Amino acid sequence: MLKVNKQVIEDLAVGAAILGTGGGGDPYIGKLMAIQTIEKKGPIELLSPYEIPDDELIIPSAAMGTPTVLIEKIPSGLEAIKAFELLERYLNKKAFATCPAEAGGVNSTIPFVVAGAMNIPVVDADGMGRAFPELQMVSFTLHGIRATPMAMADERGNSLVFDTIDNMWTEKIARVVTIKMGGTAWIALYSCLGRQFKDSAIWGTVSKAIQIGETLRDAKARGVNLLDALLDCTSGYLIFRGKITSVERANIGGFARGEAKIEGLDEFKGKLMTIQFQNENLVAELDGNTIACVPDLICILDSETMKPITTERLRYGYRVTVVALPCSEKWRTDEGLKLVGPKYFGYDVEYRPIEKMVGGN
Amino acid sequence: MLKVNKQVIEDLAVGAAILGTGGGGDPYIGKLMAIQTIEKKGPIELLSPYEIPDDELIIPSAAMGTPTVLIEKIPSGLEAIKAFELLERYLNKKAFATCPAEAGGVNSTIPFVVAGAMNIPVVDADGMGRAFPELQMVSFTLHGIRATPMAMADERGNSLVFDTIDNMWTEKIARVVTIKMGGTAWIALYSCLGRQFKDSAIWGTVSKAIQIGETLRDAKARGVNLLDALLDCTSGYLIFRGKITSVERANIGGFARGEAKIEGLDEFKGKLMTIQFQNENLVAELDGNTIACVPDLICILDSETMKPITTERLRYGYRVTVVALPCSEKWRTDEGLKLVGPKYFGYDVEYRPIEKMVGGN
Repeated sequence: MLKVNKQVIEDLAVGAAILGTGGGGDPYIGKLMAIQTIEKKGPIELLSPYEIPDDELIIPSAAMGTPTVLIEKIPSGLEAIKAFELLERYLNKKAFATCPAEAGGVNSTIPFVVAGAMNIPVVDADGMGRAFPELQMVSFTLHGIRATPMAMADERGNSLVFDTIDNMWTEKIARVVTIKMGGTAWIALYSCLGRQFKDSAIWGTVSKAIQIGETLRDAKARGVNLLDALLDCTSGYLIFRGKITSVERANIGGFARGEAKIEGLDEFKGKLMTIQFQNENLVAELDGNTIACVPDLICILDSETMKPITTERLRYGYRVTVVALPCSEKWRTDEGLKLVGPKYFGYDVEYRPIEKMVGGN
Repeated sequence: MLKVNKQVIEDLAVGAAILGTGGGGDPYIGKLMAIQTIEKKGPIELLSPYEIPDDELIIPSAAMGTPTVLIEKIPSGLEAIKAFELLERYLNKKAFATCPAEAGGVNSTIPFVVAGAMNIPVVDADGMGRAFPELQMVSFTLHGIRATPMAMADERGNSLVFDTIDNMWTEKIARVVTIKMGGTAWIALYSCLGRQFKDSAIWGTVSKAIQIGETLRDAKARGVNLLDALLDCTSGYLIFRGKITSVERANIGGFARGEAKIEGLDEFKGKLMTIQFQNENLVAELDGNTIACVPDLICILDSETMKPITTERLRYGYRVTVVALPCSEKWRTDEGLKLVGPKYFGYDVEYRPIEKMVGGN
């Protein structure tokens, strides 16, 4: 059991934003919210899934919507707590712990805000091992766990409890409500018992994010090459380095969709990378050929600091380094790829694990 | 206390569709659902608001959405019962009675389906005294009663409980959910205690609708002039008679909006009436001058049978009679007109009671 203090949250925010592959919301806002909670409540416990009793209730906590909006509509954190309490009331059962639904800026740290308010621990696991744009895209879905009953709250005081026939319908309905609420909403969903959670969650995502942040901080302090340290601790691959020459984006159906073009520098000089995103980075093409794709992680990092750049912060002129990391094995099954593979997102791309795409063969 | 049997439902369906001013859903479908219930459960009690104890819970029951869709998506009635039960469970209190939220085809009869299933009576009152297109447009809103907690169910099995900061937000969010659900949804809302209900509801709407239906049936049997009988029993005015020459309609934002043009016949020969509708008929212009407008009731009737034609059934060539009926006094206050007057609907028209518009000055 790890006690998560302010420094750990700093590391988590950096690492989770890398695992967030451009999505999951701005890490800065989420970090501030979690740090504020820890200042008030003291360090928060991070439990291994092993430590959860089989019959105890786990309720993941998350934000939903367009992270772009979050920058201008800074949340108080109360919305997430309200959604959590509403679901507890609806289930008529107290949660033993919460956890992130996905890795990513706001969504990695918001569970710590909720945990602090409810005096419960956070579990070191999530439903994605990264970030994905839609609500049904969690390992919980693969294991037959329903998103609903799901509670949702906005910053005005509106709230809803959903009960849908499947997780796709939760996504469909919750998405239009989120848009109507102004672009973001706060949710508590995929509640399940300890034994179901242990089967279905992706273990270790929180500590992995913390480790990434810690590694980068440590490498910086020791003057070690940041990229090498990062690739080493994530089993990742460098796939590009260059300068962003254009970013197109549109807010479509409640998602920040778009495309970034990057002109190569250094060993990539003369080459062009195009990255398609929909909240998260989904497909990376090198001179027109897919070199990495969802569900593997495509991360755009500031070339100097190796800090991740979320899709809503991508700008012309940034010097970036693009790395690709292998996803959880849960996503590499037929069912996993049906739920989150490139075809689901409308790309005519056959998924091949990044190890094979880059390593040759 | 009246026992509502199949004949009474037949009369109610006719009268309520007239009070529905073109909206509130198809009377035929709603009628069948209620008759089926009565065949199974026996006659349903209709209570006067006087008969409700002050501390008992009343939950109105309704359908929401585009009635146009209902014709193709025939409901089973179970959805309305599910929404009702869900709200009872959420409130943790059994309802003493239900009632319509508005007069109109489906919305007048669906409470009888719910009442039959729950073994409770229907109250002879509603929130409009007619039909209106939006959810906040009820006398309950004028009296500070909240639409939420509101339960909603669709025919697939999806359901939601809403809790919003005001009734306008209930409308906004519920509308997008209804559209996503396919155009119609079933709701239970505006729950309140007997004493609040008695203050805020529009009394006698159900019996008024029954009386209109009965009057027309009786006039037909006796060979009496149907229009005279109708105007007599509703304090209404004949404002036009003619042939529909065009109907334009579009499904915009979950509403069936449009405009019907009618060329005059008989004493109206050479004149043109235009009727704007948004689920309900809202403004009637005679040769370019407003002659009747919302919240007064504008009803388009089949000239031969005096049966009302809902907006989704308006067609080229129909011979129609247009009558206007005075609305409840609750709507003629400043607050009432702010909520449901012509300006709210975007028409630059000053409301004047139909008695003055037609009667002169």
